[in-house]
Amino acid sequence: MAGRVTMDPSFGGADPQDRAPGDPGPALLAEKVGAGLADRWQAETSMLGAMCAHALVPAGKLFRPVLLLESALAVGGDADVVLPAAVGAESGHVASLVHDDIIDDDELRRGKPSVQYRFGADNAIVAGDALIFDLFAALAECRGTGAAADRIVAALDVVARCGIDLCRGQSLEAELCARRDFDLDAYLTMVRLKTAALFRGACECGALLAGGGEDLVRALGVYAENLGCAFQLHDDLMSYTRDTGAMGKPDTSDIRNGRLTLPVLLAHRASSPQDRIAIAEVLVGDDDPAVRREVLVAVLERTGAITTAAAMAREYSENAIAALRVLPPTPSRDRLRGFAQAAIDRDQ
Amino acid sequence: MAGRVTMDPSFGGADPQDRAPGDPGPALLAEKVGAGLADRWQAETSMLGAMCAHALVPAGKLFRPVLLLESALAVGGDADVVLPAAVGAESGHVASLVHDDIIDDDELRRGKPSVQYRFGADNAIVAGDALIFDLFAALAECRGTGAAADRIVAALDVVARCGIDLCRGQSLEAELCARRDFDLDAYLTMVRLKTAALFRGACECGALLAGGGEDLVRALGVYAENLGCAFQLHDDLMSYTRDTGAMGKPDTSDIRNGRLTLPVLLAHRASSPQDRIAIAEVLVGDDDPAVRREVLVAVLERTGAITTAAAMAREYSENAIAALRVLPPTPSRDRLRGFAQAAIDRDQ
Repeated sequence: MAGRVTMDPSFGGADPQDRAPGDPGPALLAEKVGAGLADRWQAETSMLGAMCAHALVPAGKLFRPVLLLESALAVGGDADVVLPAAVGAESGHVASLVHDDIIDDDELRRGKPSVQYRFGADNAIVAGDALIFDLFAALAECRGTGAAADRIVAALDVVARCGIDLCRGQSLEAELCARRDFDLDAYLTMVRLKTAALFRGACECGALLAGGGEDLVRALGVYAENLGCAFQLHDDLMSYTRDTGAMGKPDTSDIRNGRLTLPVLLAHRASSPQDRIAIAEVLVGDDDPAVRREVLVAVLERTGAITTAAAMAREYSENAIAALRVLPPTPSRDRLRGFAQAAIDRDQ
Repeated sequence: MAGRVTMDPSFGGADPQDRAPGDPGPALLAEKVGAGLADRWQAETSMLGAMCAHALVPAGKLFRPVLLLESALAVGGDADVVLPAAVGAESGHVASLVHDDIIDDDELRRGKPSVQYRFGADNAIVAGDALIFDLFAALAECRGTGAAADRIVAALDVVARCGIDLCRGQSLEAELCARRDFDLDAYLTMVRLKTAALFRGACECGALLAGGGEDLVRALGVYAENLGCAFQLHDDLMSYTRDTGAMGKPDTSDIRNGRLTLPVLLAHRASSPQDRIAIAEVLVGDDDPAVRREVLVAVLERTGAITTAAAMAREYSENAIAALRVLPPTPSRDRLRGFAQAAIDRDQ
């Protein structure tokens, strides 16, 4: 029952057979969230409705909703009670993608035009705002599905604060990038805020709404924060370790955007003054990104940055798994453990 | 005690003497909200903290927080219980201003550089998002000040849905503007969504958190929706009836942005085909905006659009006041009535 079975296609794909009697199983959970998302803006014929539906459907990996649902199940709760919040978790995540695509001027998202490319940046700002508000509207709906009011208020507090942390992380990333800051601690803080906060929000929200005890909620928060960091560090690493990216070409996105990610920061720290200059030149250079990437990969390998970054990601993953120990044994706990393993094993 | 005394400087200024014994009075309420806003991001040394503080402090008119507080008092509640939500109402409003300034590319807000002008549009998107999340964090804080959990959940539902309505209104305005739609009903729907929804959210939120009965909450919702429409219609009117705007020059903002506001729509409806062409030309023309404004004002007066628009604003104001009848007599009810009168009497 344990192992690498996950909800996230990039984590190896869901196996509907991987469940005990009475356990809804990952495929059914994802199906319910996907149906909830599709319903959400379907009746609205306005441009806002069209934008939100465009952003939400077809659904992505639904990893945050699944984390929320599995956390609720892992503390003995009922998936149907927290289902609206799970749908809301995806709305909140997609809101950040819609706004990110404006900031990064990205034309594509999930294989189709981004909202900003299709409807214009001004309209996309409003669509992202609506999706944030809808995250909270969905949370309130859990009253109707049977969550206790005081639990919804506790979840509201967690989700709102995690949302602010996400913004702190995005803003910090812009600051670090603007001043070309090679500070490793600042980078790890940024990852904790930008990526891990929404993971934590999802897990704590699910556990709180499901009536989980304080120690279990806290454990799932620690799990999620470490999972988020492992996930992001592995993402950073894959930019340099995969031979080819999703489009069959070398992944040059981080190079082109001059991103100071973990492998680069580690290499910088371990480098001679000469190598430091080489790293800086690669990040701001005008040469073919694929060529610059090759130069950088050589530096990353020579300085041991790849190995060190992988070890750090593994440590976060192990910390995530260790945090699950206080939870009772359930298929959901096993799947949560599987996510933490897969976070550093996946190749996309 | 009744009359035009309001919290909003643009409504004539607050009079701290205008209160009964035990009634906190408008000046004290505004002071508490202002202090709450100033505290909110003070400790945060990040760029995000700087952006949010820049947007919130010094505070604007605080009209939405005051509506929330007076609504709580009007149903027999305690201002201190709902104070965090009142601070949050301003965060939510300011979030929409921060994002509006990106959309309109406005450089100035409240007499100083807009967030987008000072920190860049990309960072301003993130700051606006953080302020939306903080609206909800503030709402959750009302648990600590004594609001009942089920009331907070009801307020959460109202506030989130009003936020979505705000986005619907913004998006609809963009649609109407893009297709140069002279449909009066669509315009009034847009006003109800874009302006009145946050007024309604503030009043219903205050009344709900304060434990108000269903009929009183509903009455305050009707009041707020009509107040918001009266307020916006009067705003539209002032663009053409004031000799000079805030800067001592004719107010040409709506002309320059080609806004199809109520007086223009009414004039269009009442016009000859020839006048309709003149209206359209004025809105898209290249001539000096002050000259175009003069041409348009002549059409608005000739067609009776100014008079009709003023009568419509007055009707919304009267409907707002009528909705207050079911409330028990209190200084707050009187002040709410005063806001509705002042909304169509103010000259700025």
